[in-house]
Amino acid sequence: MIEQREWKPSVRELVRRREDLRRRLAEQQLDGLCLFSPHHVLYLTGSAFIATERPMAVLQVWDREPVLFIPYLEREHAVETTGCTVETYPEYPDREHPMRRLAPLVAARGLRRLGVDSDGYGGGYGYRGPRLSELVKCEVVQVGEAIEEATWIKSPEELEFIRESARWANLAHALLQEYTRPDAVETEVSARASLEASLAMARALGPGYRPTKSGLPAHAGFRGQIGAQSALPHATTTNTRIRAGDVVVTGASADVAGYCSELERTMIVGRPTEKQKRYFGLMLAAQDLALEMIRPGRRCAEVDTAVRDLFQREGIWDAWRHHTGHGLGLRMHEAPFLDVGDETILQPGMVLSVEPGLYIPGFAGFRHSDTLAVTEGGIELLTFYPRALKDLVIA
Amino acid sequence: MIEQREWKPSVRELVRRREDLRRRLAEQQLDGLCLFSPHHVLYLTGSAFIATERPMAVLQVWDREPVLFIPYLEREHAVETTGCTVETYPEYPDREHPMRRLAPLVAARGLRRLGVDSDGYGGGYGYRGPRLSELVKCEVVQVGEAIEEATWIKSPEELEFIRESARWANLAHALLQEYTRPDAVETEVSARASLEASLAMARALGPGYRPTKSGLPAHAGFRGQIGAQSALPHATTTNTRIRAGDVVVTGASADVAGYCSELERTMIVGRPTEKQKRYFGLMLAAQDLALEMIRPGRRCAEVDTAVRDLFQREGIWDAWRHHTGHGLGLRMHEAPFLDVGDETILQPGMVLSVEPGLYIPGFAGFRHSDTLAVTEGGIELLTFYPRALKDLVIA
Repeated sequence: MIEQREWKPSVRELVRRREDLRRRLAEQQLDGLCLFSPHHVLYLTGSAFIATERPMAVLQVWDREPVLFIPYLEREHAVETTGCTVETYPEYPDREHPMRRLAPLVAARGLRRLGVDSDGYGGGYGYRGPRLSELVKCEVVQVGEAIEEATWIKSPEELEFIRESARWANLAHALLQEYTRPDAVETEVSARASLEASLAMARALGPGYRPTKSGLPAHAGFRGQIGAQSALPHATTTNTRIRAGDVVVTGASADVAGYCSELERTMIVGRPTEKQKRYFGLMLAAQDLALEMIRPGRRCAEVDTAVRDLFQREGIWDAWRHHTGHGLGLRMHEAPFLDVGDETILQPGMVLSVEPGLYIPGFAGFRHSDTLAVTEGGIELLTFYPRALKDLVIA
Repeated sequence: MIEQREWKPSVRELVRRREDLRRRLAEQQLDGLCLFSPHHVLYLTGSAFIATERPMAVLQVWDREPVLFIPYLEREHAVETTGCTVETYPEYPDREHPMRRLAPLVAARGLRRLGVDSDGYGGGYGYRGPRLSELVKCEVVQVGEAIEEATWIKSPEELEFIRESARWANLAHALLQEYTRPDAVETEVSARASLEASLAMARALGPGYRPTKSGLPAHAGFRGQIGAQSALPHATTTNTRIRAGDVVVTGASADVAGYCSELERTMIVGRPTEKQKRYFGLMLAAQDLALEMIRPGRRCAEVDTAVRDLFQREGIWDAWRHHTGHGLGLRMHEAPFLDVGDETILQPGMVLSVEPGLYIPGFAGFRHSDTLAVTEGGIELLTFYPRALKDLVIA
């Protein structure tokens, strides 16, 4: 179990992903894939790179090792962190466009039909380039949606990474709660909790652990949702001082092999008022309802419809702002969505956030978010921080 | 100067941007723009939002106030932070696709030709949707590249934001250097410097300051480039212990109104060896050369060619890994590039990083990065941290 200690996907898992994609795409009769999204490169190779203007891709011919196509400056990093064959180009834009180096790699493999997630590097960061289909003779087939759908169903190993993420998110959140006090400054509380959790995480997981993103590997914070600002689902502030009587909405996560979890809690600073208790209770009831509704075979829309019905029934529609939850894994947000408009059928292995929220402008916001996996029999809660009001009052 | 104290673009600046785009796109005879990129929304409206699966756009009809098209959950946040007209849709995916709400807003304005940065929301995060051109009757014209080019030339107000960013990056870096000691753990040094700089920044800039991203507004760190790992231009680690004799490569930046700066330094822990001194000197000579080369009228390629020639002349081509620099502003990396393949002519107002690097696998990497603005007469260095070896030795 060397692989586990390195906190990256095992060779067996990478083969599983490749074979799963091959099976899902069988009808397309593809000879292989060329994927440009950094998330898809990570999914197929287990390797994370800092995305810049320099295009990257993984070229996956069935039954062969994946080929990483990367800029020269990533060569040593790639050789050190991956078992893939590595092909480099000097630089972007350089005198020869990198795509003109990728095209012969495709040609050399004699492929007739190639699946892609996008017809060239998506970029941002100032990148411009030709479509891959302009440069290769083989047929280029868009299969991005099928690849995305493959990533919805998490394997046991992927679930292990998310469980591990939840553990460190839990530590970060426990520290956040401990340091949340009247007169504390949000950034200070958040940075202290995030740093301590990250150091503990790095020490516990050992030198085999590598973050896949910049910034601290574990973090917890408020994202500005403090006091009346907690009523803004996506607030942004930095130096708000926490006051007695405030409702705060938190968030915590941690990066394990690129996987994340989502843990959010509503906490009340000081003795809760009757009004705060009422909304907290309604929020909890909505989350309980969603958790009860989720099981394999249900449609995503049914879960959200039940939650929306509760908002209507309780006369709190004015406090509704967003759907019940979303998929997550290598991305913090991914499909499917627990939303009235999403008819996806829930299946074992799907990982979802469950986070109905109530927002009362000028007063406060109330939202817990938990991460769960759909199982054969129902659900497994992957986050495990207390949800009850009594455990979330800052005395 | 209320606008300045709020650390966001002034109304005058937003009007300038709009008029500049109108002038640049005059030949296209557009009636307005519909932009989906979060960077472009920020550029035209001064408002930053956390991007998710929920599409956002700015609809800009010439001579009118921009219209922000956002999900309902962002309504109060938008009303609080922007002067734009705000149009919302309930949720994504919901029963009616958000794009079907955007289309009538376009139609209601009687537009004949509409410029877009992409034909629909780019997304990620699990978003799927139709092209805008499928839903509207007007002509949809791709003008993404022209909009990007408009953002290359920074106005005096934009330069002020970048100068302000450089100030706080400088503080974060000064603290990072102070806390860098043999036996210190990288994440601890980085988190402590970043937290203290962020708190000072938030307190100095006052409650009018709002970060536009999650995480700390000022930060400094090593991104894993410690000891032999400094030879990996884009390393990622988290718990490396700094040792006497290590070369470390740092990075610092700060977020001001969405603008960033880039400051990177090579530091040596303990008395530098002759070999370290030699490579440090060559790196500094390459950066000096690039700084001398940059002036209005020069082509980007000329600067990079001169630097590459120096690598060849000095017999250190093996240590070459990447181009000399890149544009930056609302993004950490944007075009143009100081690269042999970029024929863009340097113009006053362009902001660039200058960062030729030397990388010797198994030994160390050497890179300074400074941010400069091209002026009428030459350049203005916006970052101002010491560059000389004597100032970068950890005693």
